Amino acid sequence: MTQAIRKLVLLGTGLIAGSFSLALKRARLVQEVVGVGRNAANLTRAIELRVIDVASHDPAQAVQGADLVFLGTPVGQMGALMAQIAPHLSAHCIVTDGGSTKQDVCDLYRQYLPLQLSNCVPGHPIAGSDLSGASAATYGLYEGRRVVLTPLPETTAQSLALVRELWQACGAIVYEMDALTHDGVFAAVSHVPHLVSFAYMNAVLAKDNSAQCLDFAGTGFRDFTRIAGSHPDMWRDITLANQSAILADLKSNVTQLQALIDLIEQGNANELTAYINQASQARSAWGKKRSNQ
Amino acid sequence: MTQAIRKLVLLGTGLIAGSFSLALKRARLVQEVVGVGRNAANLTRAIELRVIDVASHDPAQAVQGADLVFLGTPVGQMGALMAQIAPHLSAHCIVTDGGSTKQDVCDLYRQYLPLQLSNCVPGHPIAGSDLSGASAATYGLYEGRRVVLTPLPETTAQSLALVRELWQACGAIVYEMDALTHDGVFAAVSHVPHLVSFAYMNAVLAKDNSAQCLDFAGTGFRDFTRIAGSHPDMWRDITLANQSAILADLKSNVTQLQALIDLIEQGNANELTAYINQASQARSAWGKKRSNQ
Repeated sequence: MTQAIRKLVLLGTGLIAGSFSLALKRARLVQEVVGVGRNAANLTRAIELRVIDVASHDPAQAVQGADLVFLGTPVGQMGALMAQIAPHLSAHCIVTDGGSTKQDVCDLYRQYLPLQLSNCVPGHPIAGSDLSGASAATYGLYEGRRVVLTPLPETTAQSLALVRELWQACGAIVYEMDALTHDGVFAAVSHVPHLVSFAYMNAVLAKDNSAQCLDFAGTGFRDFTRIAGSHPDMWRDITLANQSAILADLKSNVTQLQALIDLIEQGNANELTAYINQASQARSAWGKKRSNQ
Repeated sequence: MTQAIRKLVLLGTGLIAGSFSLALKRARLVQEVVGVGRNAANLTRAIELRVIDVASHDPAQAVQGADLVFLGTPVGQMGALMAQIAPHLSAHCIVTDGGSTKQDVCDLYRQYLPLQLSNCVPGHPIAGSDLSGASAATYGLYEGRRVVLTPLPETTAQSLALVRELWQACGAIVYEMDALTHDGVFAAVSHVPHLVSFAYMNAVLAKDNSAQCLDFAGTGFRDFTRIAGSHPDMWRDITLANQSAILADLKSNVTQLQALIDLIEQGNANELTAYINQASQARSAWGKKRSNQ
């Protein structure tokens, strides 16, 4: 039986933190939720929707007496928040987060919460959405979704187990890996596709007749470039935060494109078929494994 | 009033040709449809579904007395078919096709039907689907879809007008451009996205932990790589058929990726934001123009 949280504090009260709160409330695993944020309208909406019980603008005051603090802001704001809350955390308070890069967040824990590392459980719930804000929070967001925890060497088994059990109570499937592995995996299957899609769009825009080209773009283009419409500031931050893993994979994409260009220039039909076939087989197998996506 | 076709012959009786036939039948613009194909089961199914009225294995015999011949096979089979039918076409018979590359198909018309060029109307209906075969044919496939016609200098206004009106009767929006422009446009927004997606998949597969990476791939990956699951033979043919336009655009993608790599290596946050912003704005504008795709 998972121990219930008396006081949960959300630093940042958007989709990710809000849905975490709603799921824990439904599971009766939390008594009081305090939401901290800079946007008053969003906090008011969060109270109306019962995502939080109490709103606050002051992280330092809010975390006093908390059992669990969830950092749900963009990673770029987490360091300043950690610095603010550090002197006010109870000795037993667990700190976790929803940041989508983990080596940099682990560094922030080390820098700003050096005395609390045994209670820190870096995490990454994989549940992106185009929506944001407290009003986008839903009870079932984490049902069947993956959550990756990347514990620090100092994180105690007890802290880790609590965060794991809370996510499981939200319906999530919890994985553990080190932050380096995490960042490599997400560079490969999330960050780099975004960047390749941005680069592709800019290649189209560099054409003299780009407007005519875009006029004839169909469903293949639509799907391939959907992620190219993502938020620039968010993706600049992710890109710079996960620089080394991303650079390695982007260079590997250049190598692959160069190999493909060579095959086409040689008119090497057999090798070209094999090249496409390898990609196509792997993509089809992935889709089947995920029930025909 | 569009002149009705007494005898339409489909060379290749799959989704594209079959849906053309169904739409013309519904518009009462065709009296008899003969379907030619190598797959007996598919032809039987085409008759059952009233996609065609008569099945044949012999292109030369089938086209006798035809008013319109539609080449609906992969481009790689079109040359041999043209050679077979050339001596048997009536003087008034219009020949058109559904090939997705056009410079190479125009060359085939010149090579195999040099005496009938005034009646030849190369075309490209933009209505891809994962499905294939006569049983995938539907009445409404071309409703609101684009069809590009790339007339030869020899094509008469009358031949062009007839094919244009038939496609319009299918509900399609008809455009005209020369074959070179067509191939450039579709390299940019269809062929190259497929190839970049293949290259990306192969970059993931080249990683030591590719299985682990694919395990954490989410909706961004799903959409970005959907076209990577496309048919290898079909895409080898398209790639080799449209080599020069494709090579130019692939090289432009390498240039863009290299520029992006440089920005990341420099940690140039402002330029990186501007780079992503340009792509993101353009993609969002495209999506809005197409009613939020």
